[in-house]
Amino acid sequence: MATLSRRQFLTSTATIAMATLINTDATRAKAQSSRKLGFALCGLGNLSTHQIAPALAKTKHCRLAGIVTGTPAKAEAWKAQYDIPAGNVYSYNDMHRMADNPDIDVVYVVTPNALHAEQTIKAAQAGKHVFCEKPMEVSVERCQQMIDACRKAGRVLGTAYRCQFDPHHLECIRLVREEVFGKTTIVQAGFAIDVGDPAQWRLKRALAGGGALMDVGIYALQATRYLTGEEPVLVSAIETKTDKIKFAEVDESMVWTTRFPSGVVAYCSTSYRTGGIQNLRVNAERGWFELDPAFFYDGNHGRRSDGQEIRFPEIDLFAAEMDDFAQCILEGRPTKVPGEDGLRDVRIMQAIYESARTGRAVSLG
Amino acid sequence: MATLSRRQFLTSTATIAMATLINTDATRAKAQSSRKLGFALCGLGNLSTHQIAPALAKTKHCRLAGIVTGTPAKAEAWKAQYDIPAGNVYSYNDMHRMADNPDIDVVYVVTPNALHAEQTIKAAQAGKHVFCEKPMEVSVERCQQMIDACRKAGRVLGTAYRCQFDPHHLECIRLVREEVFGKTTIVQAGFAIDVGDPAQWRLKRALAGGGALMDVGIYALQATRYLTGEEPVLVSAIETKTDKIKFAEVDESMVWTTRFPSGVVAYCSTSYRTGGIQNLRVNAERGWFELDPAFFYDGNHGRRSDGQEIRFPEIDLFAAEMDDFAQCILEGRPTKVPGEDGLRDVRIMQAIYESARTGRAVSLG
Repeated sequence: MATLSRRQFLTSTATIAMATLINTDATRAKAQSSRKLGFALCGLGNLSTHQIAPALAKTKHCRLAGIVTGTPAKAEAWKAQYDIPAGNVYSYNDMHRMADNPDIDVVYVVTPNALHAEQTIKAAQAGKHVFCEKPMEVSVERCQQMIDACRKAGRVLGTAYRCQFDPHHLECIRLVREEVFGKTTIVQAGFAIDVGDPAQWRLKRALAGGGALMDVGIYALQATRYLTGEEPVLVSAIETKTDKIKFAEVDESMVWTTRFPSGVVAYCSTSYRTGGIQNLRVNAERGWFELDPAFFYDGNHGRRSDGQEIRFPEIDLFAAEMDDFAQCILEGRPTKVPGEDGLRDVRIMQAIYESARTGRAVSLG
Repeated sequence: MATLSRRQFLTSTATIAMATLINTDATRAKAQSSRKLGFALCGLGNLSTHQIAPALAKTKHCRLAGIVTGTPAKAEAWKAQYDIPAGNVYSYNDMHRMADNPDIDVVYVVTPNALHAEQTIKAAQAGKHVFCEKPMEVSVERCQQMIDACRKAGRVLGTAYRCQFDPHHLECIRLVREEVFGKTTIVQAGFAIDVGDPAQWRLKRALAGGGALMDVGIYALQATRYLTGEEPVLVSAIETKTDKIKFAEVDESMVWTTRFPSGVVAYCSTSYRTGGIQNLRVNAERGWFELDPAFFYDGNHGRRSDGQEIRFPEIDLFAAEMDDFAQCILEGRPTKVPGEDGLRDVRIMQAIYESARTGRAVSLG
């Protein structure tokens, strides 16, 4: 060991792991990759009801195996609708019982932001892989606790960044990487929604941790990162709040700018008060391309400065991200949306809030 | 006088002035408004050659009467092409002689930025009105000197903000003012060009005063001001420079954010290294509208969130702004692009540079 560099050590470890998988467990691996992983949905709100549960039915490698809910009426309705055995229904307080349930492989955490760490840690301690909605949590510290808990349990932690599975975004990434229009210079991204109902948890700081930025601005931020393939080194932000009652506890609107190590800069926006901002544009030395709308569940499309369209057949993004997560587990390969990625966004969003609060640009190491 | 408020005084003064104009000078005023004002172009570069001189031929109230140039060969060529009398040809050093030339009413200053003050002041002292290209000058102090000189001479000073005469921009202003999509929330604007020739004066600090921001970013900045009808109270900016040789003296690319008193925020960009950013988008409570391209000499057009197009018949923007300036002079009414407007942009751009340099948001009173 003493003569091995860190890279050599990691490489040799990976080689051994791979060899073990191939030689010793080849048969089991093959059986594994054809079986469907059992998902338990933790939190049965709108997203679970209208997007994730229907999407699970479209996956190749996943199945809806269980639920975690604090609402008995929801438990009954879901059990009936999806034929979920009574033994696979959990409350938030008895998630530890999952340890004895081999029917559940993955817990998909779809609860308010500030509950993600607690539930992720419970699931990991029960031996389950965790797929967690964005934002990962409300602080960097909690994100780290989630990562640590999953690592300690030897389970995989993924963040539900569906856009990284959208062919339109993948095409934009390809256009950047292959420098089809030359080197990237300036990226523009924005995502704003009219948040609606003033009573919802998204407007409560204790549950949401933040407002528009944490909920939808995160898509714009993420996009600037996966498009450039770089991490921002400087962020600067200005916040505005025009409805101080509805948005008493969280941010209403935010505009921010970032600089990346290569010199690329980005300018971005988010809001809970205005619809219609849903776009992403990459400007490069010899042209540009954009998606507008960019962040919908479906219907995203775009155009390029050479007149070509960016438009692919629609897929279910929730099904795509869950299938990929399941395959990563089944095949023992890393996910491209690990918990570490979720943590990075939370760290940058905290820097954006700090900049807006202090009036200073914040450096990110 | 002692019993009059300032407003009453101004109103009564204006009434007297108007009465004088109507009663005493009615005949002359009528003759005036039908005559064409003589324009002298000061600086015969690309803009004068390819845009302004051809545009003058399309105006109703202006005519190309004279030129100011430091290049004898250009003087000869222009004299021949435009039938300019020898007595109406000036060098930068003998502009004071214009005082004796009633054939010249207006000097249109089209020289490098850092020469605007000197030439404007000379023109004003010779009794001429001045129409000045953007940016007005390279410092707030010099802009103020220009304003003072014109005021002292009783002459009108205008800034060549052609977009304020573009029907597409006027339509956007109308959509904001009439709140067709509700109150404005977030404005996005960017203007970037590939500046080309590394030897040009635009890349020399001494002549240009700044780079992309001063030259094209100013259009994006202006647009956020005339669209909202407000002055920014806070600016924050990040600069980037990837070609440190070509852009050794001036800014290459800049992204910035601003907040306005009503709570509207804007996010903007400019660059000398990348083409293709040419847009303007207003997001409001119930929809959005945008121009893309927004800042061309012609061909600008746009769309609205309700599916309607924003497209008007093309006009010559240079002819439109010169005709309006001439009419303002002939009819004794104020221009909507006074020197004070040019100064405001220079002040805000200086704040943007300061923010980029210091890493702090800069408040504007």
